[in-house]
Amino acid sequence: MKARDKRRGLVLVNTGEGKGKSSSALGMVFRAAGWGMKVCVIQYIKGQWQTGEHKAAERFDNIEWHALGDGFTWDTKNPEQDIKTSRSIWEFSKEKIKSEAYDFVLLDEINYCCGYEWITGQEIAEFIKNEKPSWMHLVLTGRNAAPEVIEVADTVTHMTLVKHAYTQGIKAEQGVEF
Amino acid sequence: MKARDKRRGLVLVNTGEGKGKSSSALGMVFRAAGWGMKVCVIQYIKGQWQTGEHKAAERFDNIEWHALGDGFTWDTKNPEQDIKTSRSIWEFSKEKIKSEAYDFVLLDEINYCCGYEWITGQEIAEFIKNEKPSWMHLVLTGRNAAPEVIEVADTVTHMTLVKHAYTQGIKAEQGVEF
Repeated sequence: MKARDKRRGLVLVNTGEGKGKSSSALGMVFRAAGWGMKVCVIQYIKGQWQTGEHKAAERFDNIEWHALGDGFTWDTKNPEQDIKTSRSIWEFSKEKIKSEAYDFVLLDEINYCCGYEWITGQEIAEFIKNEKPSWMHLVLTGRNAAPEVIEVADTVTHMTLVKHAYTQGIKAEQGVEF
Repeated sequence: MKARDKRRGLVLVNTGEGKGKSSSALGMVFRAAGWGMKVCVIQYIKGQWQTGEHKAAERFDNIEWHALGDGFTWDTKNPEQDIKTSRSIWEFSKEKIKSEAYDFVLLDEINYCCGYEWITGQEIAEFIKNEKPSWMHLVLTGRNAAPEVIEVADTVTHMTLVKHAYTQGIKAEQGVEF
């Protein structure tokens, strides 16, 4: 693994309505872990239910996994709770990033919270500019990435839905969607 | 892991010029492996050089990894060799898929070969329709996915480049790009 002082920490954003935002970030998580980097995954939406990626990550003592969402979703009936949950995950995320303990941090589905303005794009962008260690890779996923976050990122991909199994009535498949 | 007779094997295509096509497929590879599925990765372009994802996969005895490319690239000087290499990887891929030994198969960068018509979209699509086991998940990545392959797929994502670090002169970073 390249030494921190020789590394250009990248900020990557995966957004759009297509499949692949979180999957792509997870591919990078295992890539980084394969090189021996210390990785921190923080999931804003997914809660405690079991996923294949979480089970796979258990084989790596250099991947720390925090599924902190309480399953809040777009059909939420309780916006106050969603704001509280997402704000507390954001505070936790900032502490983890500032700790300098990790080479790679994934904030999974954080952009989704921006779409609802539970966390503003401006505060995320300012935190990244002022507080993220220069050598740390940071990945932010989710629909509706804020323009300020896109502005501060090095690499931004928009996942466009061309076709999705669910539009043909096919349910989420184990090993593919979760 | 869900039994094969209860599983709807999906065909997924990741295409476009943006980052995330292979990363997203790799995320699914580790997701599937986490559930105990038997996974086969066949890389059409990447050769024998070491990658983080390959090192990570070595921790799983249910991931089989074949980096069969000889590093042929878009600036090739030897199209005959490229055709020969890609045809032989395609023959190998078909055998692996027909063997029924795997729950999840990734053909990484195969679409790229279609763009050059080294392998036609029609033959890939017909093979999928006629020979792929119904319970097997199959992922095909790479730019320039053929229309026939898109037609036969259940889920298709186009990765659109919004911004990429390399356009700002930043080199490929370990743990992110490889």
